[in-house]
Amino acid sequence: MAVNIKPLADRVLIEPQAAETKTASGIIIPETAKEKPQKGKVVAVGNGKKDYEMTVKEGDMVLYGKYSGTELKLEGTDYLMMREDDILGII
Amino acid sequence: MAVNIKPLADRVLIEPQAAETKTASGIIIPETAKEKPQKGKVVAVGNGKKDYEMTVKEGDMVLYGKYSGTELKLEGTDYLMMREDDILGII
Amino acid sequence: MAVNIKPLADRVLIEPQAAETKTASGIIIPETAKEKPQKGKVVAVGNGKKDYEMTVKEGDMVLYGKYSGTELKLEGTDYLMMREDDILGII
Amino acid sequence: MAVNIKPLADRVLIEPQAAETKTASGIIIPETAKEKPQKGKVVAVGNGKKDYEMTVKEGDMVLYGKYSGTELKLEGTDYLMMREDDILGII
Amino acid sequence: MAVNIKPLADRVLIEPQAAETKTASGIIIPETAKEKPQKGKVVAVGNGKKDYEMTVKEGDMVLYGKYSGTELKLEGTDYLMMREDDILGII
Amino acid sequence: MAVNIKPLADRVLIEPQAAETKTASGIIIPETAKEKPQKGKVVAVGNGKKDYEMTVKEGDMVLYGKYSGTELKLEGTDYLMMREDDILGII
Amino acid sequence: MAVNIKPLADRVLIEPQAAETKTASGIIIPETAKEKPQKGKVVAVGNGKKDYEMTVKEGDMVLYGKYSGTELKLEGTDYLMMREDDILGII
Repeated sequence: MAVNIKPLADRVLIEPQAAETKTASGIIIPETAKEKPQKGKVVAVGNGKKDYEMTVKEGDMVLYGKYSGTELKLEGTDYLMMREDDILGII
Repeated sequence: MAVNIKPLADRVLIEPQAAETKTASGIIIPETAKEKPQKGKVVAVGNGKKDYEMTVKEGDMVLYGKYSGTELKLEGTDYLMMREDDILGII
Repeated sequence: MAVNIKPLADRVLIEPQAAETKTASGIIIPETAKEKPQKGKVVAVGNGKKDYEMTVKEGDMVLYGKYSGTELKLEGTDYLMMREDDILGII
Repeated sequence: MAVNIKPLADRVLIEPQAAETKTASGIIIPETAKEKPQKGKVVAVGNGKKDYEMTVKEGDMVLYGKYSGTELKLEGTDYLMMREDDILGII
Repeated sequence: MAVNIKPLADRVLIEPQAAETKTASGIIIPETAKEKPQKGKVVAVGNGKKDYEMTVKEGDMVLYGKYSGTELKLEGTDYLMMREDDILGII
Repeated sequence: MAVNIKPLADRVLIEPQAAETKTASGIIIPETAKEKPQKGKVVAVGNGKKDYEMTVKEGDMVLYGKYSGTELKLEGTDYLMMREDDILGII
Repeated sequence: MAVNIKPLADRVLIEPQAAETKTASGIIIPETAKEKPQKGKVVAVGNGKKDYEMTVKEGDMVLYGKYSGTELKLEGTDYLMMREDDILGII
């Protein structure tokens, strides 16, 4: 689904991925035990800044620190807008 | 409506847009349940700074973080003056 | 009235303008209800700094944030001395 | 074991090494007496930044300060993601 | 009176001027009602710094913020040593 | 004794020297009266950083401020890892 | 007396001068009334830093702010090690 927003400068719009509700051994974890998701999909990328070129691109799956970014609700979906420097790595 | 103010340097004057009072499903949300608006229209843009060129332009609809900017009342209308770097993205 | 002071570097001397005591609809607002003025006239401008050229000039009417600048009383008149970067815009 | 993650910019992914459970003289130290590990193996390295080239490389054993980095659990293993500047030295 | 001290770098030695003890209308203000002086005479100027040239010169009368600078007593006279950037303007 | 560690960037590994337990006049000071050592021997030096060349070299005796650096125990010996800028001087 | 220490980078080693124990009028001030000395003699000077050349030289008498620098005792004498930027001026 296309998102109608262009992040400014070195910002990236991320759609957090739902935490796994089933452990490796198959046990279902109830909602309250789930950690705040720290994995997400890049859905929009800014143009970077003078002397700063963007690394991530649309579609990348990324990891980010808890509490990173600003929460935004666009057409019913929750997104996170953060600076690329808050992204830890690409998976 | 033209606004008679020229923001200095990397500042942008924004006219906040009223929060939607009707949800997608058509339910009317009472005033107190509405979130502080975070969407606005750019009505005036500064000339940038040495080594910093402006990205947004008059008429752009932008998203910004809650509590960003300085509130100004000009001829009866409320505006927000903020640095362009406080703008999250263009919608 | 000429002011006998040369602001240093990127500073600007501003003469705050009295808040309007009458609303658009003609109601007189008593003194205590008036907001601290945030509009003023530039009466003296510094020479800027290395790599920083001044934008405002003598006579400009400017807006600035509440509590910006240092208050100075010169020959019985109250002025505000502030760095140009504290000025929000020119009106 | 290969780790399927590419650290961003000047970040390094480290697999902490278990603290020695036996002292030089052969005494077994119970779990609670073990210090938080400060030694780890570099398992993935970012591409550096403009004007900053990476020094450590995959496979290096490094020392780092206690509490450095962000803890990440990837496929059941605990890792630390930190900026290269938080690494004290290579052993 | 010559002062036997050479300020370092971008520092300026200022001799504060006694606050006026008589108002414009000729009323004598007792000592306790006098404001801390904010006006002074430049008595010595440093050589500036790499990429920073001094603006004020010996003999200039300057305004400075309250509490600016370090108080020094040299041969019985009180002086203020401050960085030129703490000087607001030349009068 | 060679130490098997390469400090990163502008870091220096120092072996603190035991405080003198005998005063100049020959009086033995009990352990508790001894000051935390601030003198040490450089045992390993980083390669510096872009635009920063190292000054101290292996074998130098240096002075450093109390509480400078990170304590490390390597093969039974206590060391201090600190940035060269925390070293006060060479003796 | 030569001091066997080479300050690092932009640091200066200063031997504080004892506060005058006799006032101009010849009155002896008891120890407790003496101000902490702020005048000292430069006894050793660092080599400066990239883009920072030292101004003071061995033998200069300097003024410095109270509490500036790190106290060092070398062969029974108290010294202060401080960055040249903490020196206010040369007298």
